[in-house]
Amino acid sequence: MVNPVRLGDRILAVFEDGRSFLFTVQEGKLQTHHGVIDLASLVGKSYGSVCETHTGKRFYIMKPRFVDEIYKMKRQTQIVYPKDMGFILLMLDVHEGRTVIDAGVGSGAMCAALARAVGTTGKVYAYERREEFKRLAEENLKKWGLMDRVEIKLKDISEGFDETVDAIFLDVPDPWNYIRQCYEALNGSGNLAIVCPTTNQVQRVLEELSKFPFLNVEVWESLFRQYKPVAERLRPFDRMIAHTAYMVFARKTMDWRD
Amino acid sequence: MVNPVRLGDRILAVFEDGRSFLFTVQEGKLQTHHGVIDLASLVGKSYGSVCETHTGKRFYIMKPRFVDEIYKMKRQTQIVYPKDMGFILLMLDVHEGRTVIDAGVGSGAMCAALARAVGTTGKVYAYERREEFKRLAEENLKKWGLMDRVEIKLKDISEGFDETVDAIFLDVPDPWNYIRQCYEALNGSGNLAIVCPTTNQVQRVLEELSKFPFLNVEVWESLFRQYKPVAERLRPFDRMIAHTAYMVFARKTMDWRD
Amino acid sequence: MVNPVRLGDRILAVFEDGRSFLFTVQEGKLQTHHGVIDLASLVGKSYGSVCETHTGKRFYIMKPRFVDEIYKMKRQTQIVYPKDMGFILLMLDVHEGRTVIDAGVGSGAMCAALARAVGTTGKVYAYERREEFKRLAEENLKKWGLMDRVEIKLKDISEGFDETVDAIFLDVPDPWNYIRQCYEALNGSGNLAIVCPTTNQVQRVLEELSKFPFLNVEVWESLFRQYKPVAERLRPFDRMIAHTAYMVFARKTMDWRD
Amino acid sequence: MVNPVRLGDRILAVFEDGRSFLFTVQEGKLQTHHGVIDLASLVGKSYGSVCETHTGKRFYIMKPRFVDEIYKMKRQTQIVYPKDMGFILLMLDVHEGRTVIDAGVGSGAMCAALARAVGTTGKVYAYERREEFKRLAEENLKKWGLMDRVEIKLKDISEGFDETVDAIFLDVPDPWNYIRQCYEALNGSGNLAIVCPTTNQVQRVLEELSKFPFLNVEVWESLFRQYKPVAERLRPFDRMIAHTAYMVFARKTMDWRD
Repeated sequence: MVNPVRLGDRILAVFEDGRSFLFTVQEGKLQTHHGVIDLASLVGKSYGSVCETHTGKRFYIMKPRFVDEIYKMKRQTQIVYPKDMGFILLMLDVHEGRTVIDAGVGSGAMCAALARAVGTTGKVYAYERREEFKRLAEENLKKWGLMDRVEIKLKDISEGFDETVDAIFLDVPDPWNYIRQCYEALNGSGNLAIVCPTTNQVQRVLEELSKFPFLNVEVWESLFRQYKPVAERLRPFDRMIAHTAYMVFARKTMDWRD
Repeated sequence: MVNPVRLGDRILAVFEDGRSFLFTVQEGKLQTHHGVIDLASLVGKSYGSVCETHTGKRFYIMKPRFVDEIYKMKRQTQIVYPKDMGFILLMLDVHEGRTVIDAGVGSGAMCAALARAVGTTGKVYAYERREEFKRLAEENLKKWGLMDRVEIKLKDISEGFDETVDAIFLDVPDPWNYIRQCYEALNGSGNLAIVCPTTNQVQRVLEELSKFPFLNVEVWESLFRQYKPVAERLRPFDRMIAHTAYMVFARKTMDWRD
Repeated sequence: MVNPVRLGDRILAVFEDGRSFLFTVQEGKLQTHHGVIDLASLVGKSYGSVCETHTGKRFYIMKPRFVDEIYKMKRQTQIVYPKDMGFILLMLDVHEGRTVIDAGVGSGAMCAALARAVGTTGKVYAYERREEFKRLAEENLKKWGLMDRVEIKLKDISEGFDETVDAIFLDVPDPWNYIRQCYEALNGSGNLAIVCPTTNQVQRVLEELSKFPFLNVEVWESLFRQYKPVAERLRPFDRMIAHTAYMVFARKTMDWRD
Repeated sequence: MVNPVRLGDRILAVFEDGRSFLFTVQEGKLQTHHGVIDLASLVGKSYGSVCETHTGKRFYIMKPRFVDEIYKMKRQTQIVYPKDMGFILLMLDVHEGRTVIDAGVGSGAMCAALARAVGTTGKVYAYERREEFKRLAEENLKKWGLMDRVEIKLKDISEGFDETVDAIFLDVPDPWNYIRQCYEALNGSGNLAIVCPTTNQVQRVLEELSKFPFLNVEVWESLFRQYKPVAERLRPFDRMIAHTAYMVFARKTMDWRD
């Protein structure tokens, strides 16, 4: 049997009406709007195959992508959305073996994205000031099997960071207050990314960045537009996300001059 | 000395006028618009530090990000740009240990992005019909140290793929002709991504996708807008990229019904 | 008294919660969610001033802009939205004294916009196939005092138009079937505008336009993004309209060649 | 002969390579990149017809739209582009018989748009501080036959406006300094539009607007994307305008409270 579901696997059950349920395969039952799924009965089925609830409603057994996990994750904070996440990962140049600081962990979505990118040989040092967010992020990261690459610290970043790293992702309400700390914690040529919802925040960040020898300061925003997937009437959906956050990027140089 | 430049490192030399040069540190000299850089003399310097050309022009020694490599790569084809690349990687859910097919390698930009994402334990099977593109892609991938994870095949994909994989990236002028081959080469629940510059191509792809049991067929496009990084006059640049390609995504199910 | 409300005026009553009511000042009462407005009591008040409902709820007496009328109009069809309307008026070059055909009147929004633009000395010839839309459009145009400049014909445009005009606005589900009729009804150098919701429609229109000597064939779409009007937290609203219609423009030449 | 060119007409001569020339028909010759056009020889030709230069190069005789005039106008300032112009006219509700103030005339593009909209029975009061812009605007307006509806005043608007009007268009570098003057010069329920290139300007405008009883304060920006008009390869052009200006709108109420 190719590609069978195993106990402990994460599963995305997708019904034909588009609704989906994300869970871990274990003993027990899941109540859906279309009847009950006997979770253990999924073991051994092929990914991509069709199953039925106790009422005979069909659903697909899909392997959740990381984006599915993010859309369905437990969260108490605004998260970085996939439309920005992929670009930030590229701009931070986070890849296998890299070390990264994630400042302002929140619910842990970006932390997880960074952890996936640095691989088993890299490390994410995550800073969070509030106990309940630290717990939530740890819960999410454990569920996704990523806690071995992440160290979450309950700490105010105004005191600075404990590590020197290749990249920093800063997602706090007042990022302009921590530019010095970021500068100091970056390796030479290291990459900084900051997300800000408002133009006022971007302005203050830019003002503060200009006091340090950063290179390639760039400000970006992204708009993603989805189309109705109908061959004979191809057109965008009526509505779209208009804004999530501005993304500010900078790279550290060692250039201190008078 | 922390973080010193070593022989064989890739370097991005950034001048104060914004122009930059990307090269490998070795014996020899590089002629720039601002004078000559003695490459070997960079060994032992710190990343992020300032050097000078023989005429005394200052430049920064930066570690190139993958996006820098892409923007400066040798290419003979349209490439997937960072604005789309990061999103495609997320939608394909390509991560450590995954197997991926890259169909239509072109200059190798997306192939390299996939190779970085699958890590040392994953594999990219790349298909290219034209000898000169295969050679170019191999040259680029070698330069980036990624050839060990990639196998490039000189082969027409109309005959089908040799592997079964977790994800497929399809970037050819007539993608609608290879939907069956993609369907067959995907593991159950595997992810497919297709890029098309025109709406007509998207329409034909959608028509063909509808003949196979794919789930979550989605069509997206992205617009990235950059701002002038000036705190007291924050505003977008005057012009932006209006279009690169539409991105079509789909996930394989095993659901064959009459 | 400057600028007083008169019997028969159109009024937009705007409550402090943002909800608004659009009506004509006459005898009678209007029931709102905040109590009753005695309409005749508004006569003599200044525009822009504050009134109260019988429960003491405050509202502003505003002169409705045409865009307010459009947003609140009775309609049974998709209408052209202000974001596109202003641009179409410019591209059609509709101004005082011009003659225009409006083919596919629908609820009459664009017809009214054209009628306002041609002024008292111009004329709009409107074509509509369905009796109920003709009646609805006439009702709306009368309310706005524009019927004297408009002639609405209950007629299938496949038979051609009765007039020769300076500009044509074509808004029907199958515009590609009426390109010849539009070409014939335009004065030399006259302007044509067509709106289409789908890319497939645009393609067919372009194909058909290419069979006639049109000049400056252009296809446009517009995205309008609104910001939260808060000085200290300036940022776009979370969501926006992603799509209304593609706009196709062309100008007639007399150039018939073999 | 239908629709013939007359002496004194404005003509847009469009060559087959897309280049065009805008001029008034009179005695004399026009030198183009494709040879000489004998202007007087155009008299009596039909609009939309084909003529030839002395070298036999074909060109179309088109009636210039107002947007053609704008794109080709003599200017020394940033102008309001058609993509924003149409929307501003709608939001200002400028139509036949209205009175409008245009503050900061610049090259006169928006002034002309307003003058067209108010018709022969309306009036535009235009304010400009710099003599050379006043002259340039007058030159442009005369050329377009609109000076009879416009009065251009060489005056600093910090002293206030001389008229009370239905609508004000404010386009100056420091609009926040003239909000009181605008408030005072508007009729009750009158409409105000302000354009600002930067987010910082918008913030200051919003701050100032909040000190006066304006209603419906709205901030907008527009993105217009053009498509290659090719039926079988329909797709946007590669590049587009990313930004011109933010548009701020507000409506005057008479609501002064403590």
